[in-house]
Amino acid sequence: MVQRWGRWGPDDEAGALNLVGPDEVRAATALVRTGRVLRLGLDLGPETVVPPHRKRVERLMARDGGDYAAGARRPGGFQFAEEVWSFAAHSGTHIDALSHAWYDDHLYNGFPGTGTRTTTGARRCGAEKLPPVVTRGLLLDVAPGSALRESAVVGEAELRAAAERAGTEPRPGDVVLVRTGWLGSAGDDAVRYNDHEPGIDVEAARWLAAADVAAVGADNYAVEVQPAAEGQVFPVHQLLLRDCGIPLIENVVLDELAAAGVSEFCFVASPLPLVGGTAGPVCPLAIL
Amino acid sequence: MVQRWGRWGPDDEAGALNLVGPDEVRAATALVRTGRVLRLGLDLGPETVVPPHRKRVERLMARDGGDYAAGARRPGGFQFAEEVWSFAAHSGTHIDALSHAWYDDHLYNGFPGTGTRTTTGARRCGAEKLPPVVTRGLLLDVAPGSALRESAVVGEAELRAAAERAGTEPRPGDVVLVRTGWLGSAGDDAVRYNDHEPGIDVEAARWLAAADVAAVGADNYAVEVQPAAEGQVFPVHQLLLRDCGIPLIENVVLDELAAAGVSEFCFVASPLPLVGGTAGPVCPLAIL
Amino acid sequence: MVQRWGRWGPDDEAGALNLVGPDEVRAATALVRTGRVLRLGLDLGPETVVPPHRKRVERLMARDGGDYAAGARRPGGFQFAEEVWSFAAHSGTHIDALSHAWYDDHLYNGFPGTGTRTTTGARRCGAEKLPPVVTRGLLLDVAPGSALRESAVVGEAELRAAAERAGTEPRPGDVVLVRTGWLGSAGDDAVRYNDHEPGIDVEAARWLAAADVAAVGADNYAVEVQPAAEGQVFPVHQLLLRDCGIPLIENVVLDELAAAGVSEFCFVASPLPLVGGTAGPVCPLAIL
Amino acid sequence: MVQRWGRWGPDDEAGALNLVGPDEVRAATALVRTGRVLRLGLDLGPETVVPPHRKRVERLMARDGGDYAAGARRPGGFQFAEEVWSFAAHSGTHIDALSHAWYDDHLYNGFPGTGTRTTTGARRCGAEKLPPVVTRGLLLDVAPGSALRESAVVGEAELRAAAERAGTEPRPGDVVLVRTGWLGSAGDDAVRYNDHEPGIDVEAARWLAAADVAAVGADNYAVEVQPAAEGQVFPVHQLLLRDCGIPLIENVVLDELAAAGVSEFCFVASPLPLVGGTAGPVCPLAIL
Repeated sequence: MVQRWGRWGPDDEAGALNLVGPDEVRAATALVRTGRVLRLGLDLGPETVVPPHRKRVERLMARDGGDYAAGARRPGGFQFAEEVWSFAAHSGTHIDALSHAWYDDHLYNGFPGTGTRTTTGARRCGAEKLPPVVTRGLLLDVAPGSALRESAVVGEAELRAAAERAGTEPRPGDVVLVRTGWLGSAGDDAVRYNDHEPGIDVEAARWLAAADVAAVGADNYAVEVQPAAEGQVFPVHQLLLRDCGIPLIENVVLDELAAAGVSEFCFVASPLPLVGGTAGPVCPLAIL
Repeated sequence: MVQRWGRWGPDDEAGALNLVGPDEVRAATALVRTGRVLRLGLDLGPETVVPPHRKRVERLMARDGGDYAAGARRPGGFQFAEEVWSFAAHSGTHIDALSHAWYDDHLYNGFPGTGTRTTTGARRCGAEKLPPVVTRGLLLDVAPGSALRESAVVGEAELRAAAERAGTEPRPGDVVLVRTGWLGSAGDDAVRYNDHEPGIDVEAARWLAAADVAAVGADNYAVEVQPAAEGQVFPVHQLLLRDCGIPLIENVVLDELAAAGVSEFCFVASPLPLVGGTAGPVCPLAIL
Repeated sequence: MVQRWGRWGPDDEAGALNLVGPDEVRAATALVRTGRVLRLGLDLGPETVVPPHRKRVERLMARDGGDYAAGARRPGGFQFAEEVWSFAAHSGTHIDALSHAWYDDHLYNGFPGTGTRTTTGARRCGAEKLPPVVTRGLLLDVAPGSALRESAVVGEAELRAAAERAGTEPRPGDVVLVRTGWLGSAGDDAVRYNDHEPGIDVEAARWLAAADVAAVGADNYAVEVQPAAEGQVFPVHQLLLRDCGIPLIENVVLDELAAAGVSEFCFVASPLPLVGGTAGPVCPLAIL
Repeated sequence: MVQRWGRWGPDDEAGALNLVGPDEVRAATALVRTGRVLRLGLDLGPETVVPPHRKRVERLMARDGGDYAAGARRPGGFQFAEEVWSFAAHSGTHIDALSHAWYDDHLYNGFPGTGTRTTTGARRCGAEKLPPVVTRGLLLDVAPGSALRESAVVGEAELRAAAERAGTEPRPGDVVLVRTGWLGSAGDDAVRYNDHEPGIDVEAARWLAAADVAAVGADNYAVEVQPAAEGQVFPVHQLLLRDCGIPLIENVVLDELAAAGVSEFCFVASPLPLVGGTAGPVCPLAIL
């Protein structure tokens, strides 16, 4: 059993991100060789693919250049534009906060699921409780040079093989990024993208948890394979987020990183600290 | 004249962030000593102080723990929560994109202001065009151990004195963070916070631009002093964003960094790549 | 005891609006004399006064004339503008649906309060279940030619006196509109407007319910006096909406109607049928 | 030429609704026979069919029954629910304001199209300028007992034949409702519903304008046939809204009215007075 409630005290809301301390930070920055910085996050805009049940990303200008073309005043010569954004927390590239998923009415560390309410947001384990992450990133490419097919299962064996190809292993405090090729190959069909994604299964997740990784990301919608095994609904979310306190990073852009031929690197992610949020939008970086 | 249009080609939309290359990235990560990571961004939520003319940050749950308490089904045991966020791009800590402010109907690099439209957002210099920043951060604390008063002007002399105290100078590619103490001392009155902030004036901005810094941030609403000199409206925005292509980072949290007694450090900011946005929300980091 | 659960069957969601049948409609239209039509609803826009805890009315253009001034194409010559609205259901002039308020975990007619959920809206007694109202309107002006002071209590005696002045009495199926003068005199201070309004007390509400009126409206924020008697919170809402199934119509514009010197008239209100909504925005009419 | 600019003065923003005066109101209410009230508006909610380019209707609870099930306090026993709505102005049943469509940079009555701006909404001819309508409704059923096929053209001849069946003719101040059967038969495919609707052509529109009707509605998305004749884009909008100042009422529910066998009736529509809006959501009524 991998449940870790209480490991970092009864009030802990950071989960496995506690595994990243100053030593891990120093080790990560020491990995920098070329100084090349790769953006691992998707652009976020009206064209972003979202599941049909979620609202689309909405951008509405509150002031723009058209206003001036139509005669708006420009005191002191000053002209400006600004806008309002509205989107579901789980759009684009984001980190699932530990308040996002649970079972048996309890979140990670035993916090009550009823603490997540309309009027309060997540009173425990909200996105603002996620510390920023600077640690070793480990790319496990399970489809080198290609892409997995729909609903392909990535098990422990596939992860082990990828680690062997990478010449390293998941270590405590790592952020492991699983590349399936799905994000770059699935196309714009939101239903197919979300409901039939390749991804890890529960055994693979358990192996990663046993290695004490800090977080798990993938280039797909939910890290885990969809649909799950018969009778199960998001079992990897249940295991990693709720039992183990391991955040998931979804829709991570990995093709360019894979093409760079680097398996370990300095990984940085500083999610937007949305108070009471169940996810933190983020544009993670790989510093090579 | 400090205008830099064309310096990085007629199609450039990154401006002074071009001054950060692999050498600056390597030099920045080499500054890491203790491995301590400081979050320089504000929490973003319904309590975030915004100017009265802007919409407040809005968080509305689309599924929550109350649903389950009230009897919602939990197929496979799975329970989850999620929500929708809506906010003005310039809320909380954010980087002003080069599309945010201009004059004479032209943005940075001569792009037409009319490219910023209701239906298109910013077609040029949107937030998604801002590369992530990993570079040397330089803290210029103009109010060490205290806070400036309302509408105090920070001129070139004050910046020079702060640099002298820091034992270094702004260098090409730096992100300079000016600490006024305002964010930590001004209180919750949004009108006072925004309309009467201390900050830099045009001379100070020109001095920073001449040093070829990559971006300028501050622990206030608009980097520059409010109100501006008679007859001027956001002149520092006009100079830095529009003439020089230097992004501004606003509402940066600097008190803890100042207390740490470190003037130069590895600065990382990876703004949310909002397509056509005039700002990128961000939680910057100082890695000590 | 005035509770009426079951009076119109166990599945009824229209409450006292059932008291308006074809006879009442015919009688109401027969009241028309001059053909003058008065709008009893407030304009709804960014300037609308809302309580501080609610979101302001938001209007954001999705296409506008500025776009064309800035060069947008006009296929076939066609130009258009459109926009997105976002507002709290209880903004401006609206009818409180019977799902809006309750106690002891049960709504009107015994429906469970838990049926009002994030993901479902109001499964019972939503705004779309409110039938349109065409019936006799009865104006009870408790402050003829003037306005009540802050937190003034309108009791049964005041309503009886107003009815006497009007030369008529509340009858089954009437919509009774209580004019306090508050809306026209209170000014723009949202806190004062909402928290210190004059309005009816529970005795007055009981008297109206006993008369079998179909709905009760007023020219204030909540029909009932604020604050309520010691230890009570919105007791008129509890009595009328929950016990009696009598909808409340709030922020009704009554000064012009009062000035017209007409006490009974053809009243028409057709609220927006918002599915699962707890209120229906509406612009009611008095046809004189 | 049917253009009517200036007919009601240079500042007029009500257009053909000026044709409804007290006489028309009295005549309309005198048509009431049975006292039956029919709702001619669609329910408005998350399931409402909208064109793909528009945002869906969004309902998000800000307080709900789940909150109480999860332990929210209930001071004085009071429980309540409320929510936020967000939708495109042209969703569901609505009246197109005269600011919605134009050509040659000028709206109805010569107002500049540039008056419709991000920051101002429609400064002229906004939805709040539409007076409420109480007048004779005239049902012209061009598909009695059935429904028109995709993109079927309803010309002047079809309208004349329908009027003959109705035993009456369009008269000054009438609201003419054209029943095509499309709304009740087209199904949930938003693209098909909007892009291939049957509806009136320009000749039919000119005939209605010549009759001095106050407004034209239909049981489809845009009143007019889609697609329009080669090279034309929404020509009926251009003619009726812009040249003639005749508002259009879209997505009107007409099957039950047609089934009632009544051709003329008391029509009431009181659109939500959205300030600067290009449409007013409405639930019109037929009082039989």
